[in-house]
Amino acid sequence: MPANFTKERVRKIARIAESEGRKFDFILLKNATEPHLDLSFFFITGLEAGLFEGCALAAYPDGETRVYSSKLEEQSALKGGKRFHVTTFKDRNNLAGLLKKDLSDGGSLKIGINSNELTHKSFEDFKNIFPEAEFIDVSSAIVRARMIKDEHEIAAIRESAYIASRVFPKLLDNLKDGMTEYEAAAFLNSTMQSLGAQGPSFDTIVAFGENSAEPHYSPGSVKLKKGQFALFDYGAKYRRYCSDITRTVVYGKASKQQREVYNIVMEANQLGIEASKIGTKAGEVHKKVLKFIDATKYKGRFIHSTGHTIGLAVHDGAVIHPAFNGIIEENMVFTIEPGIYVPGFGGVRIEDDIVARKNKAEVLTTASKEFIEV
Amino acid sequence: MPANFTKERVRKIARIAESEGRKFDFILLKNATEPHLDLSFFFITGLEAGLFEGCALAAYPDGETRVYSSKLEEQSALKGGKRFHVTTFKDRNNLAGLLKKDLSDGGSLKIGINSNELTHKSFEDFKNIFPEAEFIDVSSAIVRARMIKDEHEIAAIRESAYIASRVFPKLLDNLKDGMTEYEAAAFLNSTMQSLGAQGPSFDTIVAFGENSAEPHYSPGSVKLKKGQFALFDYGAKYRRYCSDITRTVVYGKASKQQREVYNIVMEANQLGIEASKIGTKAGEVHKKVLKFIDATKYKGRFIHSTGHTIGLAVHDGAVIHPAFNGIIEENMVFTIEPGIYVPGFGGVRIEDDIVARKNKAEVLTTASKEFIEV
Repeated sequence: MPANFTKERVRKIARIAESEGRKFDFILLKNATEPHLDLSFFFITGLEAGLFEGCALAAYPDGETRVYSSKLEEQSALKGGKRFHVTTFKDRNNLAGLLKKDLSDGGSLKIGINSNELTHKSFEDFKNIFPEAEFIDVSSAIVRARMIKDEHEIAAIRESAYIASRVFPKLLDNLKDGMTEYEAAAFLNSTMQSLGAQGPSFDTIVAFGENSAEPHYSPGSVKLKKGQFALFDYGAKYRRYCSDITRTVVYGKASKQQREVYNIVMEANQLGIEASKIGTKAGEVHKKVLKFIDATKYKGRFIHSTGHTIGLAVHDGAVIHPAFNGIIEENMVFTIEPGIYVPGFGGVRIEDDIVARKNKAEVLTTASKEFIEV
Repeated sequence: MPANFTKERVRKIARIAESEGRKFDFILLKNATEPHLDLSFFFITGLEAGLFEGCALAAYPDGETRVYSSKLEEQSALKGGKRFHVTTFKDRNNLAGLLKKDLSDGGSLKIGINSNELTHKSFEDFKNIFPEAEFIDVSSAIVRARMIKDEHEIAAIRESAYIASRVFPKLLDNLKDGMTEYEAAAFLNSTMQSLGAQGPSFDTIVAFGENSAEPHYSPGSVKLKKGQFALFDYGAKYRRYCSDITRTVVYGKASKQQREVYNIVMEANQLGIEASKIGTKAGEVHKKVLKFIDATKYKGRFIHSTGHTIGLAVHDGAVIHPAFNGIIEENMVFTIEPGIYVPGFGGVRIEDDIVARKNKAEVLTTASKEFIEV
């Protein structure tokens, strides 16, 4: 990790913003109340502990960064060492006064904001504190800076994916008749944590039988029965970084159709990984995968994007779909997760986390993708 | 539960907004990417499953509500039955077109927005879709409507608090020498889930020894040793509603000072619960608790608010502190959580979830608060 990655990351945002014609005097970020925290606050500071509700951050194009921390989070903020300067505030008004005093320069400021993760209320506060300022939306530069990971970030996601992967065989050993979806979800979450995860990176999905046909299903008290699909979509958070994996198995003996659907999704997954070459348009990766599935009798049954970038957020800014008009770049980390969903029958999704590398993608999720009858 | 609580809840928001001089033609909510979802979307719809990223909702003062759902979440959206109308959109542009077509009335609209949970980017989108509209910030009406719970909401929080409470004695049975903070956190989370929780309501805090002096500490690989404080701050999510409990014990034989600190915090906790009478200013409850602690030799060691409202968010809008200029109202649900933090020694916090009721507060967190040496 670079001696001062805060400086490096801020400079990267500034460089990209400048290339987009969005020069700023400083970026101003503010967290609202959980869950409305700006994850870029954590990207820049690298702080691994703490919530920092109501706290702010100002970062200059040369990389100098000032964190404004509530008294409550002061000890956590000081863990940043020399990466940034910490000022402690007592309350909201005190923070407003400090920002005005420290950051005003008498002239007309150009303040960069992250409109993706700033609440409209916090924006109104900024306008009150700096009535003369021009606000420049640098959210696209922030998304781009966060999209291409440094090796310190990739190491955290790799560990996060490794934790999730090691949980899968343990899960298979523990599946049993009559187990409920939420018991299986509890097993996944607790095993991830006992392996060092901070927690799950999103609400774990466990779907048995025809529930697996609903991509964003929430687990319930449905019980596992022989002959059913069992779909597990889960991930770990490690040093705030997310992994996101899906595996689908058949509990008991599989039918011919279950095996057929699985094999198609499996081929689509491999096709997606192979297509994820540096320089390829993200939309092209999706089109290839979609075309492949649509050439089977399951045409129209793949109903979401092929993937999404992951990082501090489980959906970290871009999708592997034509809705994102960008290319695969070196050190982008994203999911490849084709699926086939047949209402009344069930669904299969196979999801991996990969890093785009010079020769071929590095697959971080190492859990088996063989067709498994438990 | 009322036949159509969506209608009741929207009408409640409209009534409060009108009393604040903020009449609107309709409220427009929009979710961004997780975690930037507007929890009021779930307050109004009551939808228990699904993420609804990028989805929107329009609600009229008479209670009529329209949900705009992505194709991906359509099945989850339809679970609202007849409470609201569901329209499915294909992509962002399609959604913008549908909103414009359905909601424009040719005149100059007054659109209510929830600036607390709306990203600034989504607000800019609204301005593009409805360039002639006047936007009225109704976030304070939404906060107030959500602050006073209906019995359907209280039942969910009661179950959530009951799950968290039942986990505590199981935890005590499982504490052992050398157990790490994150192993204890994993135990708490998994036991909550096996009792029916959707997941933890926030990142579980487990702090051993002097780490307990840091209120927002994140668990690490520190091992439990005899004679240490062990602080557990955790909660369950049940039907999206949060509980939030803290218990502190001594592992092994307690010192005189540990017992002394515990007893002061325990008295402060009881004082806070008793002071939480309907009609009392929230700030007065905090002042009483603070005054009590500051009259001991631990003056200055209680460094946060006495509590906060809970609901769909673990910090659900108001604090039990003079920063919130409101009174305790019937059916407000909030925490009472005094603490004493002594750097280098450790800290004690005892936190309960309570409902303000006519005679005296109903305490939802039933786990023992006796001084416990494990």
